[in-house]
Amino acid sequence: MNNKRKASGLIIIGNEILSGKTLDTNSNYITKELSVRGVDVKEISIIQDIERNIINKVKLFSKNYNYVFTTGGIGPTHDDITAESVAKAFDRKLIVNNEARKLLEKHYNVNERTSARLKMAILPEKAKLIYNPVSAAPGFYVENVFVFPGVPRIMQAMFYEFIDGFLEKKILPQKQISTILPEGIISDYISKKQEDNKDILIGSYPYFKNQNFGVSIVLKGEDENKVEKVCLEIFEYLTKKNGKPKIF
Amino acid sequence: MNNKRKASGLIIIGNEILSGKTLDTNSNYITKELSVRGVDVKEISIIQDIERNIINKVKLFSKNYNYVFTTGGIGPTHDDITAESVAKAFDRKLIVNNEARKLLEKHYNVNERTSARLKMAILPEKAKLIYNPVSAAPGFYVENVFVFPGVPRIMQAMFYEFIDGFLEKKILPQKQISTILPEGIISDYISKKQEDNKDILIGSYPYFKNQNFGVSIVLKGEDENKVEKVCLEIFEYLTKKNGKPKIF
Repeated sequence: MNNKRKASGLIIIGNEILSGKTLDTNSNYITKELSVRGVDVKEISIIQDIERNIINKVKLFSKNYNYVFTTGGIGPTHDDITAESVAKAFDRKLIVNNEARKLLEKHYNVNERTSARLKMAILPEKAKLIYNPVSAAPGFYVENVFVFPGVPRIMQAMFYEFIDGFLEKKILPQKQISTILPEGIISDYISKKQEDNKDILIGSYPYFKNQNFGVSIVLKGEDENKVEKVCLEIFEYLTKKNGKPKIF
Repeated sequence: MNNKRKASGLIIIGNEILSGKTLDTNSNYITKELSVRGVDVKEISIIQDIERNIINKVKLFSKNYNYVFTTGGIGPTHDDITAESVAKAFDRKLIVNNEARKLLEKHYNVNERTSARLKMAILPEKAKLIYNPVSAAPGFYVENVFVFPGVPRIMQAMFYEFIDGFLEKKILPQKQISTILPEGIISDYISKKQEDNKDILIGSYPYFKNQNFGVSIVLKGEDENKVEKVCLEIFEYLTKKNGKPKIF
């Protein structure tokens, strides 16, 4: 609906998410942070720690989207194969990145410098670093593919700092209405509103809170006045229907 | 590692997840439930409410995996297009499913039967129903594609009941060890163990809890004795290294 906004895809790498051991919260964090910076997430793919799968997905997403973000698989262990896979996806050699190596040597004492840890400085040739304020091991990017770790606390610290310098904040005008009426009652009306206002995106999301079902309606669009106008029309309709609407 | 286990893919349909408005917890629930029933989730794809995207992903996953599970997009609103998309993916007509219609008519009084609600009985031809104990609107399946709603409370009630009748519970032997040592210290050893025991899957997952970092090591395999043996070897190694290991 707005060709100024950029499109992105997320690749979440990790068997621990596919086994259900870990709940993925990284993609939720990233989608929110990107959204306010004018980047829409079009697709999220959660895949296994398998080299061929990572290579194929990185190639496909890199071609289809303006930006690609990956999380997971850049630590020191045997199942951390993201750097190698990204190098192969772009036909680049895997080399010791001197800047990354210096950062790791500064962070770890001589007796803490295991080969496993120094492996974290082995990156695709000409990769640019994404700094890590928590544990030194950097992320990196190659062309339009941005590689972050999987541990949420570290990923978030890195993502927030990096992305703020990289992308400008730009909040898309948005309004939200809640109502106690179920979707089945209001959706014919909402469908009509969406049909008549194609430049606004209207989403309808049932929720269950404090023992009550309800629906939350979200309106988004470039034109703030139009978002407000349509929001008020829906509000009036819901008021007439005794839907006890609230605007946020 | 075990060709008796089945492979599956999840397709999570919903703009509200891609915008960051909603945290997807359905895939975590489904992966856990499937795992104890002998089905591994190989890939999770979160996509927009766009017909072409849903059709393509359903076709691809249906071909690649034994089972495919979808959540989202089967409610009464204008953006609920999953049934239509699945019908097209399998070249089936979209028809009124009489059994689904009867369920909805039983649930809703005459004056509650909006066209939006009755839309929920319009399903692919020859679809089989998945019953909904919460709000009557059924899920369905066509060949190996199983279609569930997106609201977690409803999805879970349906999934649990249905899947228990459909798949047998079968828990894969598993052991878990925690240690206070960081991945960078233990990963050379763990890599070696994985190399020497290819029929066991060893995962290593850093965590942060009560102000402390630690690592959780998970071992899984068909052969329970072997899982226990390797677990004890790792436990002994971590004890020697003052890693304060605990077995779960």
